Amino acid sequence: MSLLLSLALLGLAGHSVGQGIPDRGFPDCQDGPLKNNTVCDTTADPLERARALISLFTVEEKLNNTGSVSPGVPRLGVPPYQWWQEALHGVASSPGVNFSTNGDFSYATSFPQPILMGAAFDDELIREVASIVSTEARAFNNDGRAGLDFWTPNINPFRDPRWGRGQETPGEDPFHISSYVHALIDGLQGGYDPKYKKIVATCKHFAGYDMESWNGNYRYQWDAHISQQDLKDYYTPGFQSCARDSNVGAIMCTYNALNGVPTCADPWLLGDLLRDHWGWTNEQQWVTSDCDSLQNIYLPHEFASTRPEAAAKALLAGTDLDCGTYYQHHLPKAYAQGLFNESVLDQALIRQYSSLIRLGYFDGDAVPYRSLGWSDVNTGNAQQLAYKAAVEGITLLKNDGLLPLQVSSNMSIAVIGGWGNATEQMQGNYYGVAPYLHSPYYAAQQLGATVYLHTVPGGQGDPTTNSWLTVWGDVEKSDLIIYADGIDNSVELEGMDRNSVAWTGAQLDMIGELASYGKPMVVLQMGGGQIDSAPIANNENISALIWGGYPGQDGGVALLDIITGKAAPAGRLPLTQYPAEYIAQVPMTDMSIRPDESTGSPGRTYQWYTGTPTYEFGHGLHYTNFSASFSSGSSPSSYGSSSGSSSHSIQDLVGNCHEHYQDKCLFRTFDVDIQNTGSIASDYSALAFLTGTHGPKPYPNKRLVAYRRLHDLTAGSTSTAHLNLTLGSLSRADNKGNSVLYPGDYALLIDTQPLAMLNFTLTGQEAIIDLWPQPPEPTYQTSDYFVGGYGSTYGEDVLINGTV
Amino acid sequence: MSLLLSLALLGLAGHSVGQGIPDRGFPDCQDGPLKNNTVCDTTADPLERARALISLFTVEEKLNNTGSVSPGVPRLGVPPYQWWQEALHGVASSPGVNFSTNGDFSYATSFPQPILMGAAFDDELIREVASIVSTEARAFNNDGRAGLDFWTPNINPFRDPRWGRGQETPGEDPFHISSYVHALIDGLQGGYDPKYKKIVATCKHFAGYDMESWNGNYRYQWDAHISQQDLKDYYTPGFQSCARDSNVGAIMCTYNALNGVPTCADPWLLGDLLRDHWGWTNEQQWVTSDCDSLQNIYLPHEFASTRPEAAAKALLAGTDLDCGTYYQHHLPKAYAQGLFNESVLDQALIRQYSSLIRLGYFDGDAVPYRSLGWSDVNTGNAQQLAYKAAVEGITLLKNDGLLPLQVSSNMSIAVIGGWGNATEQMQGNYYGVAPYLHSPYYAAQQLGATVYLHTVPGGQGDPTTNSWLTVWGDVEKSDLIIYADGIDNSVELEGMDRNSVAWTGAQLDMIGELASYGKPMVVLQMGGGQIDSAPIANNENISALIWGGYPGQDGGVALLDIITGKAAPAGRLPLTQYPAEYIAQVPMTDMSIRPDESTGSPGRTYQWYTGTPTYEFGHGLHYTNFSASFSSGSSPSSYGSSSGSSSHSIQDLVGNCHEHYQDKCLFRTFDVDIQNTGSIASDYSALAFLTGTHGPKPYPNKRLVAYRRLHDLTAGSTSTAHLNLTLGSLSRADNKGNSVLYPGDYALLIDTQPLAMLNFTLTGQEAIIDLWPQPPEPTYQTSDYFVGGYGSTYGEDVLINGTV
Repeated sequence: MSLLLSLALLGLAGHSVGQGIPDRGFPDCQDGPLKNNTVCDTTADPLERARALISLFTVEEKLNNTGSVSPGVPRLGVPPYQWWQEALHGVASSPGVNFSTNGDFSYATSFPQPILMGAAFDDELIREVASIVSTEARAFNNDGRAGLDFWTPNINPFRDPRWGRGQETPGEDPFHISSYVHALIDGLQGGYDPKYKKIVATCKHFAGYDMESWNGNYRYQWDAHISQQDLKDYYTPGFQSCARDSNVGAIMCTYNALNGVPTCADPWLLGDLLRDHWGWTNEQQWVTSDCDSLQNIYLPHEFASTRPEAAAKALLAGTDLDCGTYYQHHLPKAYAQGLFNESVLDQALIRQYSSLIRLGYFDGDAVPYRSLGWSDVNTGNAQQLAYKAAVEGITLLKNDGLLPLQVSSNMSIAVIGGWGNATEQMQGNYYGVAPYLHSPYYAAQQLGATVYLHTVPGGQGDPTTNSWLTVWGDVEKSDLIIYADGIDNSVELEGMDRNSVAWTGAQLDMIGELASYGKPMVVLQMGGGQIDSAPIANNENISALIWGGYPGQDGGVALLDIITGKAAPAGRLPLTQYPAEYIAQVPMTDMSIRPDESTGSPGRTYQWYTGTPTYEFGHGLHYTNFSASFSSGSSPSSYGSSSGSSSHSIQDLVGNCHEHYQDKCLFRTFDVDIQNTGSIASDYSALAFLTGTHGPKPYPNKRLVAYRRLHDLTAGSTSTAHLNLTLGSLSRADNKGNSVLYPGDYALLIDTQPLAMLNFTLTGQEAIIDLWPQPPEPTYQTSDYFVGGYGSTYGEDVLINGTV
Repeated sequence: MSLLLSLALLGLAGHSVGQGIPDRGFPDCQDGPLKNNTVCDTTADPLERARALISLFTVEEKLNNTGSVSPGVPRLGVPPYQWWQEALHGVASSPGVNFSTNGDFSYATSFPQPILMGAAFDDELIREVASIVSTEARAFNNDGRAGLDFWTPNINPFRDPRWGRGQETPGEDPFHISSYVHALIDGLQGGYDPKYKKIVATCKHFAGYDMESWNGNYRYQWDAHISQQDLKDYYTPGFQSCARDSNVGAIMCTYNALNGVPTCADPWLLGDLLRDHWGWTNEQQWVTSDCDSLQNIYLPHEFASTRPEAAAKALLAGTDLDCGTYYQHHLPKAYAQGLFNESVLDQALIRQYSSLIRLGYFDGDAVPYRSLGWSDVNTGNAQQLAYKAAVEGITLLKNDGLLPLQVSSNMSIAVIGGWGNATEQMQGNYYGVAPYLHSPYYAAQQLGATVYLHTVPGGQGDPTTNSWLTVWGDVEKSDLIIYADGIDNSVELEGMDRNSVAWTGAQLDMIGELASYGKPMVVLQMGGGQIDSAPIANNENISALIWGGYPGQDGGVALLDIITGKAAPAGRLPLTQYPAEYIAQVPMTDMSIRPDESTGSPGRTYQWYTGTPTYEFGHGLHYTNFSASFSSGSSPSSYGSSSGSSSHSIQDLVGNCHEHYQDKCLFRTFDVDIQNTGSIASDYSALAFLTGTHGPKPYPNKRLVAYRRLHDLTAGSTSTAHLNLTLGSLSRADNKGNSVLYPGDYALLIDTQPLAMLNFTLTGQEAIIDLWPQPPEPTYQTSDYFVGGYGSTYGEDVLINGTV
């Protein structure tokens, strides 16, 4: 979405259907025109209630209510409704969210960006955060300051480090995303099938959206070419988790096309896969377009020969709501031309209003969430959780023993770099107004030390040394140098991908000269996408390197608490830190995950990358040491086949599985005892990777199949991580996208530098446990500029070269 | 320069040498410590005066005064001085310029961007504009609000349409740039060798700088590979015009390296070529670094093994001033290490202070410009000239006869598009505070018509249709549609090159639907770099297309006056409008101007492009028709060789040329009679192109060798353009960069679709008329990421992959 521009346009947008800005009032089921309609009968089935309501709408009223700014139906007492709210990591500024300029409702809790919360590898934390967000969202709604549906989360896997919006995601791993989002939706929606949904979440962007603007390829016209194998293995597990396993209320289709078809007009994607295969068929579940991805079906995708045809194709494919006005403008003509019939329109509206019914929109004070108010926003608990989420995610990449470092009030600290006094920077994108924003500089001052601040160089864009001369004297006087810099939303941004994953020359020059003083020095690498910190890792004069992501409202305090040991680091990189040259080895347009000798691609993510990362996925140091062992209950002899060996018959596993979706059947719970063998209390995230030789070559390096964060292991203590592996986690996708259990050898590894390993085998014949629906043969290719990347040609485009 | 960041840093910058922000006072030669020093003797030679001053400085004081924020020498009464002022198209916001928040000196005249003024092809206009700019600059200086030197103009040829700063230049043609800048410097400096310079101009960026950030190539680390032939023919003529022919006061070296050597550390470029070959050796002439191109000599160029060595290399190469603090920080260490001796430092300081002396810095009220004040800013004449400059540049690309269009007060006009109500947008970049900013919407309102404004789509980044619904009703009610959009500084910008030269899908969708109403419709294509308007050219429902560039403070009025015929268009495209696919045919990193079958490059600029442009260089329609004929004085029989034929002996031409620089010798003045054969009075710019078969193949398509704008030719009237061709304009560069007169056939064409043609031949032996100094063999290559473009590899970089 183009959030900033859309905000600017909102004043006009309300007028678009002659209704002014939605007043966010609720329908009056006590005295309004609908009071005797079934929609106001709280005992009736939500679907019946919605049908009863929509049956009262004229065709024109139905057509009017297909956009994100819906006028409602005044004659029926159905108020206007703004569907577009954002809440990526807290209630966020967006067309439907209205922060007060001061006093009550002038701010909301601002948690870290998902990329840093992903680093916590702590689903319970995510559930708690999401619960706070939905509580605050409901409070805003009750004050008429927000709607009830929110267009979050962004769960496209962080495929390429250049992606400007990767910061919005939990990281690069599909299992991690699936597990994370399952907890998140529980917290946002108030359970997986509550009577009243707390809010409606929207999993986006379905599917294959993970590029903004790269070398002439723009998200609005990009056609992502993705194999069914990669689609199943990598690009869609998070959406399966949302739709099939978490009962999410909404899904957003994308700007890009997928294998030739704009996703919002793709009956296979929105029908065969999403609704039919994943069973996402509750009446309350709807698909919204991205803003305004319906327009770009016509241009630049040129997927329809007329504008009404583009709108009709989207509606028929199953896009129920248009973020924008393309439906409202063009569906009437399409309807007049007979391009769709009224029942399709009814279905879209029934889905929308069923969703509002499940949110209690028509039910007045019967909805328990109606009592939430300003006192439920920014509570002490919420503040503490925002701090905790930052601490849990912050990741220690390098430590020569300097950390933890006791800071006394007679010390002097030089805080240098573009992030030194970060405020809004700490929120990344899609943020709201925070109650406070505590920078590293602020936090250093709280320690009672003398702190010298120099915010140079000013990020990645600025090489000017105008203020550098003032730095050196203060560095001379300091006992500790904290260099806080990296990237931020000036270089990784919606609409803008990066073209470098290196620190700049000016940054490295500053870092190098600071290091030459030989003083204790800590570098804070900030921002979502990684930058290659090899020059820092290799510099012996730099004691420690910490990745801080976008740590949110209390991020500076969290960072300093980790430096001083008030908190112990246990975050893990949720993405690969590639060497800087990686981005020259694979164009961003190459969607393949696997390495490819023919193109020279070294592969993507820790699962397939054939090079040596600077820091690998899952890397994260602690202030203590841990050992791990599979507990007796997990020993090879006590589980597996009926013979008691570590060998398992595939046919037995499948035969004993009675789930409709066989990949959900439990294979085994592995209990892993984790002992803190050092002297400092610390969390520990047990990451379990599967590797081995099974199925066709090439094999992935390894793949995450389970994780669990253990909290506050005191020195010497042991805690047990219960790790569930399903049949799905053993399976791999074949080239048709089917999930297959393959006979062969398997090894389960605990941690990136394994602390424990357990081997087992599967025997018998390979078996499909999930039959992937096959798309129709491509009959159409959208017009693209640089399909294929660096060496490719500029496609023919009749409209660009012809006439409009 | 990174202007915005640097402005933010300015507050600190002043403190960098312990002096606070410069107070811009003048030295006190009446009562100050220097009153008896030769520097205060207005009768003495400027060089002697500067030497006398510098002889009083200690080494430390000299080292302190090597940066753009110079502290001066308080003990001597030498005040601090800020060297960094900007005035690209009017006195502009910059570190040394201080606009008042209100009242006097709260604004200055804001002319169109150079790319639009270039389209006027009117050197006298440029001289007048520059004279106003320097007058206003002096007024600001007299009020303590600006220094006396300005870092303008930008004369790198607009080589590639993607370049974000091409808007700052007069266009793509080297002859045009050379002629334009010769007039500009006259206006800025108050003559070519005045007793007191009005201001000092700075020709930038020397040389090969014309890329910001493209596909991982950044200006700070880019190594431009340019042949000596292209360097002579294309990249340096403008600088030769500045240094050799216009006595410019300052030259700025670049961020990029040139053939392996960072330009600010290149003794060949700054010494052999600039100073020795071009004779730019007055004591008052100095070279400044770009901000902070000295830092990037160290990193990322890695051209020196230590920071002091990087600084010393720059000083020794002839960079006299550092925009930044790298000299102030590192030259002391370099001096202590013996990397340079004091005489080199003296030379740099003598150049700086000689320049100030020539500006009258020490001469009090003896300087005539001291009387200029606020009443000389934004005069009626200046306002009229800003309007005139816009009118002269605005270029009519398409007209089916609709224009000029009389607008009556009972008409309704729909003004649509992101530029409809443009304000600061109209100034482009490097702008100051304008007295007013008249948008197309404002101008349409002044006509007395009813005007409906809809600023959608919002430029190139926004596809959202939120406000589109409100457009159509107003279009229905309108008698004329003006669609004003294109690009602006959100996509073409310092630090950011474009990755598309097409209108976006959303823009084309809007244009196409507007055109479908079948009403009179005019498209204003705004912005500096071209976008491919073929879809508009080909749409029969769109009557007219006008290119408006960045038209400055009165740009909207100028545009509407041309639409209504109050003014007649006579602008010419100063650059090629390529088809959109052009940018996929040649990577931005390919600096070669000539087409190359081995790389597939179709060549650059109208001189060499082998494809068919959408609109060619020099294209521009009028409201009338013109005919041209060579007047009798130019007929073949009356000039040329002694035999009276149209044949000329090269040896005679050279033998009769007694200039030190033989390319400056006049070949012939051609007088061309231009008649307005239509019914509407109009300006006409006579563009003279040379073509023919002479010298080695391949031949350029043609090349501009003279131009002259004729003003206000009434219907039926004739006016004569006197076009001077020099020996230089006949010559071509050989592969060593020498200028050579070749025997062969020549044809002189008047206009792009020639209205007249004249043939002549050169006979005899080829002769070198300018012997290009040869650079040393490359011994070093800076580390680059994507040298060579699309298919290239990521270079080794010990610092990126190693340690800092």
